[in-house]
Amino acid sequence: MKKASSLSELGFDANGAASGFFRPVADDTTPTSHRRRLTKVSVIGAGNVGMAIAQTILTRDLADEIALVDAVPDKLRGEMLDLQHAAAFLPRTRLVSDTDIAVTRGSDLAIVTAGARQIPGETRLNLLQRNVALFRKIVPALAEHSPDAILLIVSNPVDILTYVAWKLSGFPVNRVIGSGTNLDSSRFRFLLAEHLDVNAQDVQAYMVGEHGDSSVAIWSTVSVAGMPVLKSLQESHSSFDEEALESIRRAVVNSAYEVISLKGYTSWAIGYSVANLVASILRDQRRIHPVSVLATGFHGIADDHEVFLSLPARLGRGGVLGVADMELTEEEARRLRQSAKTLWENSQLLGL
Amino acid sequence: MKKASSLSELGFDANGAASGFFRPVADDTTPTSHRRRLTKVSVIGAGNVGMAIAQTILTRDLADEIALVDAVPDKLRGEMLDLQHAAAFLPRTRLVSDTDIAVTRGSDLAIVTAGARQIPGETRLNLLQRNVALFRKIVPALAEHSPDAILLIVSNPVDILTYVAWKLSGFPVNRVIGSGTNLDSSRFRFLLAEHLDVNAQDVQAYMVGEHGDSSVAIWSTVSVAGMPVLKSLQESHSSFDEEALESIRRAVVNSAYEVISLKGYTSWAIGYSVANLVASILRDQRRIHPVSVLATGFHGIADDHEVFLSLPARLGRGGVLGVADMELTEEEARRLRQSAKTLWENSQLLGL
Amino acid sequence: MKKASSLSELGFDANGAASGFFRPVADDTTPTSHRRRLTKVSVIGAGNVGMAIAQTILTRDLADEIALVDAVPDKLRGEMLDLQHAAAFLPRTRLVSDTDIAVTRGSDLAIVTAGARQIPGETRLNLLQRNVALFRKIVPALAEHSPDAILLIVSNPVDILTYVAWKLSGFPVNRVIGSGTNLDSSRFRFLLAEHLDVNAQDVQAYMVGEHGDSSVAIWSTVSVAGMPVLKSLQESHSSFDEEALESIRRAVVNSAYEVISLKGYTSWAIGYSVANLVASILRDQRRIHPVSVLATGFHGIADDHEVFLSLPARLGRGGVLGVADMELTEEEARRLRQSAKTLWENSQLLGL
Amino acid sequence: MKKASSLSELGFDANGAASGFFRPVADDTTPTSHRRRLTKVSVIGAGNVGMAIAQTILTRDLADEIALVDAVPDKLRGEMLDLQHAAAFLPRTRLVSDTDIAVTRGSDLAIVTAGARQIPGETRLNLLQRNVALFRKIVPALAEHSPDAILLIVSNPVDILTYVAWKLSGFPVNRVIGSGTNLDSSRFRFLLAEHLDVNAQDVQAYMVGEHGDSSVAIWSTVSVAGMPVLKSLQESHSSFDEEALESIRRAVVNSAYEVISLKGYTSWAIGYSVANLVASILRDQRRIHPVSVLATGFHGIADDHEVFLSLPARLGRGGVLGVADMELTEEEARRLRQSAKTLWENSQLLGL
Repeated sequence: MKKASSLSELGFDANGAASGFFRPVADDTTPTSHRRRLTKVSVIGAGNVGMAIAQTILTRDLADEIALVDAVPDKLRGEMLDLQHAAAFLPRTRLVSDTDIAVTRGSDLAIVTAGARQIPGETRLNLLQRNVALFRKIVPALAEHSPDAILLIVSNPVDILTYVAWKLSGFPVNRVIGSGTNLDSSRFRFLLAEHLDVNAQDVQAYMVGEHGDSSVAIWSTVSVAGMPVLKSLQESHSSFDEEALESIRRAVVNSAYEVISLKGYTSWAIGYSVANLVASILRDQRRIHPVSVLATGFHGIADDHEVFLSLPARLGRGGVLGVADMELTEEEARRLRQSAKTLWENSQLLGL
Repeated sequence: MKKASSLSELGFDANGAASGFFRPVADDTTPTSHRRRLTKVSVIGAGNVGMAIAQTILTRDLADEIALVDAVPDKLRGEMLDLQHAAAFLPRTRLVSDTDIAVTRGSDLAIVTAGARQIPGETRLNLLQRNVALFRKIVPALAEHSPDAILLIVSNPVDILTYVAWKLSGFPVNRVIGSGTNLDSSRFRFLLAEHLDVNAQDVQAYMVGEHGDSSVAIWSTVSVAGMPVLKSLQESHSSFDEEALESIRRAVVNSAYEVISLKGYTSWAIGYSVANLVASILRDQRRIHPVSVLATGFHGIADDHEVFLSLPARLGRGGVLGVADMELTEEEARRLRQSAKTLWENSQLLGL
Repeated sequence: MKKASSLSELGFDANGAASGFFRPVADDTTPTSHRRRLTKVSVIGAGNVGMAIAQTILTRDLADEIALVDAVPDKLRGEMLDLQHAAAFLPRTRLVSDTDIAVTRGSDLAIVTAGARQIPGETRLNLLQRNVALFRKIVPALAEHSPDAILLIVSNPVDILTYVAWKLSGFPVNRVIGSGTNLDSSRFRFLLAEHLDVNAQDVQAYMVGEHGDSSVAIWSTVSVAGMPVLKSLQESHSSFDEEALESIRRAVVNSAYEVISLKGYTSWAIGYSVANLVASILRDQRRIHPVSVLATGFHGIADDHEVFLSLPARLGRGGVLGVADMELTEEEARRLRQSAKTLWENSQLLGL
Repeated sequence: MKKASSLSELGFDANGAASGFFRPVADDTTPTSHRRRLTKVSVIGAGNVGMAIAQTILTRDLADEIALVDAVPDKLRGEMLDLQHAAAFLPRTRLVSDTDIAVTRGSDLAIVTAGARQIPGETRLNLLQRNVALFRKIVPALAEHSPDAILLIVSNPVDILTYVAWKLSGFPVNRVIGSGTNLDSSRFRFLLAEHLDVNAQDVQAYMVGEHGDSSVAIWSTVSVAGMPVLKSLQESHSSFDEEALESIRRAVVNSAYEVISLKGYTSWAIGYSVANLVASILRDQRRIHPVSVLATGFHGIADDHEVFLSLPARLGRGGVLGVADMELTEEEARRLRQSAKTLWENSQLLGL
C-alpha cells in the first residue's frame, strides 16, 4: 500500500487527472499554432527597474505569460516566487524564470533592463563598451529564440543601446524601440498639471531627443485641452523669455536625478512608463509615445547617421507604425542634430 | 515689467486661474463635508512592504488620496516623487508624504507597516517591546488624526501588534485588523492550484491562527469548485495520513522563508494581499478573508484571553462585519487554543 | 417542530447570523457618517439611455450603490433583477429601484435621463413644457433627498433642461451639469482618429455650444499629439475653405441621426459618455470635458442671459471646478452667442 | 488647384501619411502570422442578447477586434456605429460588421446568439427544426472562415443547439461550448449571497444539467468560504426536507422567467455571463464554469448518447480542458440521466 507524503504523491498531478476531479472531454486536437496566440512578455534583468516593470505588467494583466531572466539565480527565483504567491489576488498569468535566455522562447515582446554599473573612475566609453559586451550575450540570443518579437530597450544610455540592440538583433527597425523620453514626458506633464490643477492626462507635452540632460522640450506642442500653453504664457508676460522655459526643462531633467539622490534609484515611474508602452504595443493601440526610434532624416539629421533618438511615434502590434514629423523651432532642431552627431560619433567607436 | 523665471512666476498658479485657461463658474459652495467623501488611505512605513502596498493601491485605483509616512525624510520624498512621476499613466490620485503623522488626517484606512528590526542577539521579547514603543508613537497619533479610520496592521509579529494597536487606539474591535494569514492562504491556494492546474481563485483554502510557523491549515474546508479535496485524497490513498497534510502546511509556511532567503525580503505578494483587503474594506465588498481579529470565545479560546488570531472574517466599510465560526477538528482547535495561550501570556508582559 | 419551506425560514436571514456561519466581533460602533462614505449614484429613467448608463457604471465599478427610478414598475424591476443576476461576475454593488424618488436618498450624483416623447404634430415648445412639468416632479424631489448631490442632466433638449434643473433644484451652479456635447466630441474624435489611423484618445477635438444641429466645432484646438490639424490642412491645401470644415462638422452631427434612423435610438455611446463624466466627477479627476454649464459672460454672451451651453469644463468631486476660456474665431463666438440668444428666449417662455 | 470638400480630400487618408503627421520608419516587414496574434471575437446575432455580450466584451477590453453579424443590415450598422462613437472613452478596439459571415474570418472565438422565435401555435419540435435550419447556414460558414475558433453557443434551447453546432462544425468536442447553466449558477449564488449578506463571489454553488426548468442544483457543493451550507442547514432545522431545497431551485429557475415577464427579455446578466466565459477562454484562465459540454459517460449517461449538458468544466485557450466528475446524490444523477435521455431522443429527430 502506498503511503503518500508529498503533494505529487497525494495525487496532485499536472491537470489534476489523478485527483479524480477532472476528466478530459476528448483528446485536445487544437493545433499548437492556435495555442501560441497567448501573449508572452520577457523581462531581462530582475533589478529594481525590471521588477517594477514586471509587477506593473502583472497587475495590469497585460500578458498571459511573463518570463524573467537574470544572471543571479537566487534573487531571480525569489522575485518570481514573490509574484507567484499573489496568485489568489490576480488573474492567472504564467510566470517562469531562468538564468538561461531560452526561457524567453516565443516572446511577443522582450524588454531589456540589464546593464553594467559604472565602476568608480571608469570612463563613459568604457562603461558603454561593457554594456555592448553584455548586449552581445543577450540580444542575439533573444532574437534567436523569438524571431518575431519586438525589442524594447530600457537600459541606459538608452538611445545608443537601442541602436546597439538593433544592430545585434538584425531586426527590422520598426521592431526595436527604446523607452527614451516617454517617462521624461510624463514628468513634464506632471509638473505642468500640478501647477494648472488639471489631470496630467489632459496635458499634451513632449520631451524628445536624447534621454537625459540633452532632452528637448517641444514647447510649441504643449497644450491643455488643445489650448496652446506657450501662447498663453507669451500673452500674459511681457518680458517672457527662453531662459524661463529652459529652467522648466531643467526642472524636469533634474527630477529624475532628485529621485535617485533621495531613494538611490528610480523604479515605480519607469515601471508604469514601460507598462504603458507594453499596452500600446501588444493591444495594438496606435497611441503616440515619445520613444527612441531610428531618427535618420528627421529634422535635418544626416542621412548617413544611423542614430536612435526619441520622437513621437505611433505604436502598435507591429512596433513603430510611424514617426511624427513635428514642427520644431530652429533652435530645437539644432539641438536634436547636435545630439544626433554626438551619438553617431560615439556609436562609431563601438565596432559594431 | 515682470520677468518670469519660474513656473509659478509664469502664471502656473494653483487652479490655473492666473494662466487664463479656466474661470470658476461660481463660488464653490459645496460644503466641506461633501468633499470629504474622497477616500484617503495612509501607509505608515515606506520600506519595501509599505511601498509595494502603496504602489499596488495606486495601480488598482483604490483611493483618491494616499499619504505616506516614514521616519527617513529623503527616502520618503524619493518614493513619493517616483510615484508622482507616473501621473500621465494613471488616474489622478493625490499623493502626499511627511515624517509627521498629521499628514494622515482624515484617513479612511491607515495601514501600519513600520517595525523595528531585530538586533543580533536580541531576545524576541525585547524586540517586541521596542515595537510596542514604536506603536506608542504611531497609533495614538493615527487615532487622533483619523478617529473614524480602520487600522490595518501589517508589521510583525502581526497578531500581537494588532492587539497592541487595538489597545493603544481605543478603537472598537471591528476597526482594528491584522493582515494575518491572508497572504499565507494565498500561498496555500497557489500551491494547490499549481498542482491541480486550476485557477487559484477557484481554490477555497484557509490558513488560520497565528501568522507564521504555528498557522493552522483548515483541511476540511479545502475545496475546488465546491468539491472537497480532503475527501478525494482520502478515497484515493488508502494509507493517507496526517503527516502528509502537515508536510504541505509546512511547505506553505516555508515558502515565505524561501523568498526571504532568496531575495532578502518579501514585498510583491504582501503588497497584493493588503491591496486586496483594502478593496474589500473600502468598497464594502463583504468578502471573506482570513485576517487577524479578536478571537476571544472562538473555538474554545478562553473568554478572558484577549488575543488576536486569524479567522475567516467578512470585511466591509465598517471593518470586520463578522467572523466565521468554522467547524474545526479537535486537533485544529487545540492548536488555535495553544497559540492563543502563548500570545496572551506574551501580551501580559507588555504592560499595556 | 419547524418545517422550513422558504429561504428565510431556512435560516438565510440578513447578515447570515441565523445560519451559524458568522458571529459579529462586537457591536458595530462606527458612526453613521462614517458609513455614508459609500458612493451612491441614482439614474432617473430606466429606458435605453438610462440603462446603458447604469450598466456601464456597474461594469466600470464606479459606485458602491446604484438606485434606479422609473415610472413603469415592471420594466424597472425587470432591469434591476437583470443586473443583479450578474452578481457572481461583478464586484459587489448594491442595486435598488423604486418608482418613488425617495430611493435616491443620499446620492452623490443623480443622473436624469427621463423625458417626454414628442407627440406627432406637437410643437417643440409644447414638448418642452411637458418636459418642464416632468422635471417639476423629479428635480425638487431629488434635491430634497440629496441636498449635496451633483445633478447630471442627459434628457433632451439637454441645454435648456439643464437650466430648468438648475432653477428647480436651487443648487449652486457648479453642481448642475448637462451631458451636452461630451458625446458629440467623442464622435468628432472618432471620425478624425479613423482617418488619421491613430487612437481617438490621442486626438484633442472639441464640439461646444448647443448640443445638436447648432453645435460648434473648435477647429483651432483640433490637434493630434499636440500638433494642430488645421494648420497642417491649410498648408497642404491651397484652396482649403470653411465649407470643407463645415461639412465635417455636419458629418459629426449627422452621425447621431444616422444611429437613430438605423437602430431607433442611441444607447451605448451615451452610456459610455456619461459613465466617463461620472468617473471624472466622483473620483475627482479634474479632467476637461465639454459639458453644458452656465455660459453667461463667456465669449460675449450677455450678462443677463442665464443660459447653459457646452464649454470645456474641469470636472471633479465638487462638480464644475472651472470653465475654459478658449480662444474662438469671431465666427465661432458669433454662433455661440446666437445659440445663447435663442435658448434664452425659449427659456423665458417656460415661466420658471 | 484642388478644392477639398470632404474628409478624404482633406488628406485624412488611411495611416495619416498624406496629412504630413507621420512617416513610416521602414517598410513593415513583420510577417502576417505575427499580426494575427490580435484577438478576434465574433458575435452572431445583434439582438438584445448579442449586443449586451458585445458591449460587455468591449467595456472589459477582452478583444482586439469584434465582428458583428446579423441578418438585418440597418439594425446591425446602427449598433456598430453606436459602439464606435464611444471610441474616445475606450481602449482602441477594431469593430466591424456585415450581414456576410465572411466578416468573422480568423476569429478566435465565435459566439452564436441568433435563433428563430416561436410562432404562436408552433410545436417545440418545429421551432427546433427551424433553428437547425438557421444553424445550417451559420455554423458551417463560421467553421470554414475560422477553422481554429472556439464556438460558444448561447441560442436556446442551448444544450441541443450546442450539440447541433458540434455536429455541423465538425470541430473537436473541446472547442464547442454552450453557455448552459453558467448564468443560472450566478442567479443561484446571488440568491444565496443576498440572504447570507456575503459577496456572491465567495459563494460556491452550481446548477448543472439542462439549462432551464430541469436544471439540477448540486446542494452538496454549496459552500461559503469552504463551509458547506447544506450541513449547516440540516443541523439547524430538525425537519428540514428535500422540498425546501427544491423550492429554492425553483426560485432560481423562475427568476429568469420573472425578468422576461417584467422587461420582455433578458440581456444584461447573459451579457456579463458570456463575457465572463470569454475572459476565461481567451486569457487561458483555467477557471471552472458550469457550461454545456459533451456529457456522455458522466454520471451514468449512456455511452451511445451524445448529449450536451452543463457540468463544471475547466476552460482555457484550448476550450474545454476538463470536466469535473462531481459526486452527486442518486436523485441528482437520475435527473441528469433523465434530461440526457430526453435530449438524445429529441436530437434523433433532427436528421443530422
